[in-house]
Amino acid sequence: MTELGVVRRAIHRADRASVDRLAGFGVATVHEAMGRVGLMQPYMRPIYPGASVSGAAVTVLLHPGDNWMMHVAAEQIQPGDVVVAAITAECTDGYFGDLLATSFMARGARALIIDAGVRDVRTLTEMGFPVWSKCVSAKGTVKATLGSVNIPVVCAGALVHPGDAIVADDDGVVVVPAAWAEKTAAAAAAREANEGEKREKLASGVLGLDMYKMREPLAKAGLKYID
Amino acid sequence: MTELGVVRRAIHRADRASVDRLAGFGVATVHEAMGRVGLMQPYMRPIYPGASVSGAAVTVLLHPGDNWMMHVAAEQIQPGDVVVAAITAECTDGYFGDLLATSFMARGARALIIDAGVRDVRTLTEMGFPVWSKCVSAKGTVKATLGSVNIPVVCAGALVHPGDAIVADDDGVVVVPAAWAEKTAAAAAAREANEGEKREKLASGVLGLDMYKMREPLAKAGLKYID
Amino acid sequence: MTELGVVRRAIHRADRASVDRLAGFGVATVHEAMGRVGLMQPYMRPIYPGASVSGAAVTVLLHPGDNWMMHVAAEQIQPGDVVVAAITAECTDGYFGDLLATSFMARGARALIIDAGVRDVRTLTEMGFPVWSKCVSAKGTVKATLGSVNIPVVCAGALVHPGDAIVADDDGVVVVPAAWAEKTAAAAAAREANEGEKREKLASGVLGLDMYKMREPLAKAGLKYID
Amino acid sequence: MTELGVVRRAIHRADRASVDRLAGFGVATVHEAMGRVGLMQPYMRPIYPGASVSGAAVTVLLHPGDNWMMHVAAEQIQPGDVVVAAITAECTDGYFGDLLATSFMARGARALIIDAGVRDVRTLTEMGFPVWSKCVSAKGTVKATLGSVNIPVVCAGALVHPGDAIVADDDGVVVVPAAWAEKTAAAAAAREANEGEKREKLASGVLGLDMYKMREPLAKAGLKYID
Amino acid sequence: MTELGVVRRAIHRADRASVDRLAGFGVATVHEAMGRVGLMQPYMRPIYPGASVSGAAVTVLLHPGDNWMMHVAAEQIQPGDVVVAAITAECTDGYFGDLLATSFMARGARALIIDAGVRDVRTLTEMGFPVWSKCVSAKGTVKATLGSVNIPVVCAGALVHPGDAIVADDDGVVVVPAAWAEKTAAAAAAREANEGEKREKLASGVLGLDMYKMREPLAKAGLKYID
Amino acid sequence: MTELGVVRRAIHRADRASVDRLAGFGVATVHEAMGRVGLMQPYMRPIYPGASVSGAAVTVLLHPGDNWMMHVAAEQIQPGDVVVAAITAECTDGYFGDLLATSFMARGARALIIDAGVRDVRTLTEMGFPVWSKCVSAKGTVKATLGSVNIPVVCAGALVHPGDAIVADDDGVVVVPAAWAEKTAAAAAAREANEGEKREKLASGVLGLDMYKMREPLAKAGLKYID
Repeated sequence: MTELGVVRRAIHRADRASVDRLAGFGVATVHEAMGRVGLMQPYMRPIYPGASVSGAAVTVLLHPGDNWMMHVAAEQIQPGDVVVAAITAECTDGYFGDLLATSFMARGARALIIDAGVRDVRTLTEMGFPVWSKCVSAKGTVKATLGSVNIPVVCAGALVHPGDAIVADDDGVVVVPAAWAEKTAAAAAAREANEGEKREKLASGVLGLDMYKMREPLAKAGLKYID
Repeated sequence: MTELGVVRRAIHRADRASVDRLAGFGVATVHEAMGRVGLMQPYMRPIYPGASVSGAAVTVLLHPGDNWMMHVAAEQIQPGDVVVAAITAECTDGYFGDLLATSFMARGARALIIDAGVRDVRTLTEMGFPVWSKCVSAKGTVKATLGSVNIPVVCAGALVHPGDAIVADDDGVVVVPAAWAEKTAAAAAAREANEGEKREKLASGVLGLDMYKMREPLAKAGLKYID
Repeated sequence: MTELGVVRRAIHRADRASVDRLAGFGVATVHEAMGRVGLMQPYMRPIYPGASVSGAAVTVLLHPGDNWMMHVAAEQIQPGDVVVAAITAECTDGYFGDLLATSFMARGARALIIDAGVRDVRTLTEMGFPVWSKCVSAKGTVKATLGSVNIPVVCAGALVHPGDAIVADDDGVVVVPAAWAEKTAAAAAAREANEGEKREKLASGVLGLDMYKMREPLAKAGLKYID
Repeated sequence: MTELGVVRRAIHRADRASVDRLAGFGVATVHEAMGRVGLMQPYMRPIYPGASVSGAAVTVLLHPGDNWMMHVAAEQIQPGDVVVAAITAECTDGYFGDLLATSFMARGARALIIDAGVRDVRTLTEMGFPVWSKCVSAKGTVKATLGSVNIPVVCAGALVHPGDAIVADDDGVVVVPAAWAEKTAAAAAAREANEGEKREKLASGVLGLDMYKMREPLAKAGLKYID
Repeated sequence: MTELGVVRRAIHRADRASVDRLAGFGVATVHEAMGRVGLMQPYMRPIYPGASVSGAAVTVLLHPGDNWMMHVAAEQIQPGDVVVAAITAECTDGYFGDLLATSFMARGARALIIDAGVRDVRTLTEMGFPVWSKCVSAKGTVKATLGSVNIPVVCAGALVHPGDAIVADDDGVVVVPAAWAEKTAAAAAAREANEGEKREKLASGVLGLDMYKMREPLAKAGLKYID
Repeated sequence: MTELGVVRRAIHRADRASVDRLAGFGVATVHEAMGRVGLMQPYMRPIYPGASVSGAAVTVLLHPGDNWMMHVAAEQIQPGDVVVAAITAECTDGYFGDLLATSFMARGARALIIDAGVRDVRTLTEMGFPVWSKCVSAKGTVKATLGSVNIPVVCAGALVHPGDAIVADDDGVVVVPAAWAEKTAAAAAAREANEGEKREKLASGVLGLDMYKMREPLAKAGLKYID
């Protein structure tokens, strides 16, 4: 349940080795490996192309136009974490810039995922601190109202518990429940192993129609060819 | 955690008396009484004005363009329930029309909340079955893939557990965790009791500036009057 | 092919009797009867609830901010027609108000479908002239550039040929190719006949799960019930 | 220039008689009479149909999620005013409900125009207090940061100076600079006088093509008729 | 007319030499040369900057969340083709990734244009297979329902017949009807020849006002200069 | 007040030295230094990353789909200016391409800010002429109706007077009133001086909680830590 004014210090982080493996598979494969759940909405975009990260979620719930809790969240970051910021209502303000990024990096954070705006994007790009956000906005925020840190939040349509594994790349952001990290990494690995062979066949000109044996079910479903 | 292909039959519904009281306070008051959390995004609109309902949530998770699980959900409805339908990705299809509404009403459902489209809205209006949805669309759906019923879902930005209290009116839709239903109803009642007196004062011309004693804090914050 | 500066006077209108029947089935049923194609995007909304029309399409292609061709289209209207207005680029201007509506009504038009804005909506409501549009806007337009009348146009995502049957109600707008009007009306009638019986069963408490014999395929697809 | 923390008490209101006349012409006609400038964006919609108002603007600039200045604005309202609320960044929160409406009505306000959300819309409808807003949202706001009252603001894309005439109806909202109120009312009256005769002609079947003598310029522009 | 469950094998492709020339002119010039029709909506963006292609259209119509027909389309690709994918309703799912791209490239496809989402964008970028899409999404799709291949489709607001010439670059995507490819290429070449001289003049400081002889028509239209 | 058909030749430009300094601070810092007003909406994005400019505003008001006044504006450009283009209604057309850019550059313009579309973006990138726009569109415009040059305009939600200082970079676009340019540059410089020290502390691991002395006010506001 969503409680305001609360910071949970002791959270259970997803198994580190599994989390670290997940980045290598990429968001699309991890999402498939999970059974196609847990994806954030596609409006979440990286501020620069090519970043690919995974980490355990430190969550923060903020109010529109107020980033006070970002500083509270900073203290809860452990090396390898990814901060996931949700807002209690739609907002495009720039909650995060180069100063906070400096602090987050000093604490060992790998990335920020925020369902709002971010600023100083050129500097963040130079610093190599990746952010996935709804938009870019120079609009700053005040520090006046309490939110919470490390409670379950809904970010860009996905439920995130503190400690969940977050995987983010150019395809978007996916959330893997902490308890599923290991089996998801295994499933993703199996999926990937399988893909190399398929890729080779397709590259050689074999059609998916034949490789996946689709011709019969398509005919059965009624597909007609016309010349 | 979001699992596909699962129907939970035994859910814990929020206390019925409390749920029933909540509709009377309205969404805005309930949302305030909860501490301003749990509100669905404002794009969720009723198909006709004036409807005001509360009920226990039966949740359903669907895939884009596929309403198969709606029929599975129908069986889980008990009198007084509100069905909450989430989709695994953005979709505007019309998942629900007058036939399903007939079935839902026969089961005792009070309303549907759906983060997608609805159709037959004129007939639904005549039937008096209220729906809060993202849009209206005549586009039908197929029945081909499994989702789940009565698992936690994210609907229009809000986390809904099966059994949670749902309150919906012209101002939108709010989710009250089942365990909070009673205390939220109490807090809403207290809030409302308090409002009658305020309303009278304001109607008589007393300013909020004076009633809420804001002049001093405003001056302290630096507000300047210019003639 | 889209040609500018052209007015086609001789168009083949869909069979009048079939067109007239279509309104009675409603957009959702007609769309199903056609095999789920031809629907305009769901952002097309009526300016007042309860209108339900069908008619043969007189098409007009306009430029952003320019309604000159509306007057050219007026002359091509025959009693029972519905004017379908497409714009060469996204635009929210109010291309149509009470004067044009007076003219269209005098010509026998039943409605306007426009992928842009409309104004004087209160007066149009009083006149009983229904419009489905992308938005309402008081912004008027100039009369400076040529478009075309009665050429194929894309309106709100749907291809419309002059003479096609247009059906519009509270669920949206669907386009029935002229050559399909008769068989679509027949298919819609069959569909509707079928629905009365279903509705009765569902109202009596029979579940769709049983009526549509879904339990077996659901089990086969792997659906699990948990208590 | 936009200054924060300032309340201007002495503002020059547009001539009352002219302001009062403007509502009668409607937004579309007033906008035309002004030369097609000053219109707010079409996403501004009334909370109920049929309202039609005009009044002198009391402006207020607010921060995202903070309605403190609404109470400051209330004191500056004089009978016949319309409050125009702008936000420093995009926000959908519900800044205004039935308590503030009670206060605004007691002060003589005729309406609220707000580039954000509003709540208690059913009660506001029953009270007959019209609001034009970007959306409806039950989400309340805090009272923590200073904005300003009666400074020039940009609301839904339109520049509004305190004292400007505001006209709002089902077609949207238009801003008439205070100094233009009288001549705009005159121009609108002239326009309207002119429309009655046109309407009659069009109703009798005369085409705009002939009434506006468009055939020659259309031919000159290259319009071709095809049979 | 839109028929589902159909694959047309024999299509008439636009003249290859003309199609190949079109890419060199760029989308903006080709669109002008066609008389400003046939442009897809501006939300269609390339997954990486700098790509510039033209080709004959192989069209495919898909359902929301279902990419089965992509495999059927693959077989219809001939070297030099561009696949154009339309969806029967709005959808943001990722219909296309690196495996399908491998297959499309093996068949000789030059690009994909899709009115939905795409995934594996980093790998696609490395492969040099350009895609213009509505969005990027890691969300996969099922293979359950029939659409069609090589029927006329509406993609991002533009009508595309199989065989039409498609031109796409950083400015967007334009459709040239097959029968117009040659004359459009000629018109574009003439336009371009004309532009070099203009560019030189403007670079030397000559104003468009003088080069296009606009001063007189502007004065005639009533333009006033104020010092 | 917004007047159409007017070109103001004599405008008061913000102090050149101050304007030139502003680019160095960046949009986010300048916006803070101004007290968080004057920011354009975040949908305004640069056509290529890394551009950073400041200049005095030459404003132009255009109609949907009509760029005639762009040529009139070109003549009013002085070296160091930034052209700010507003449209009287929402429009996505491509008002500006490489020819106009050649002309603007020849006149000494540093950038274009336009609340609509732009085209030839690849060529503009090669030319190094930065544009901040709402979108990219190949759709050209006509030259038929009068707007104005160097009148106050509302562009992407911000009020711009001719001569105001415009600052634009990857974070967006901010408007500094001409009379504020000097003091804003001074305030921005003070802000920046202050940031270096903060950055060092944060990089060394000091928390914002301690550096900004937030622990006490947070506790006072009721923040609770849970283990």
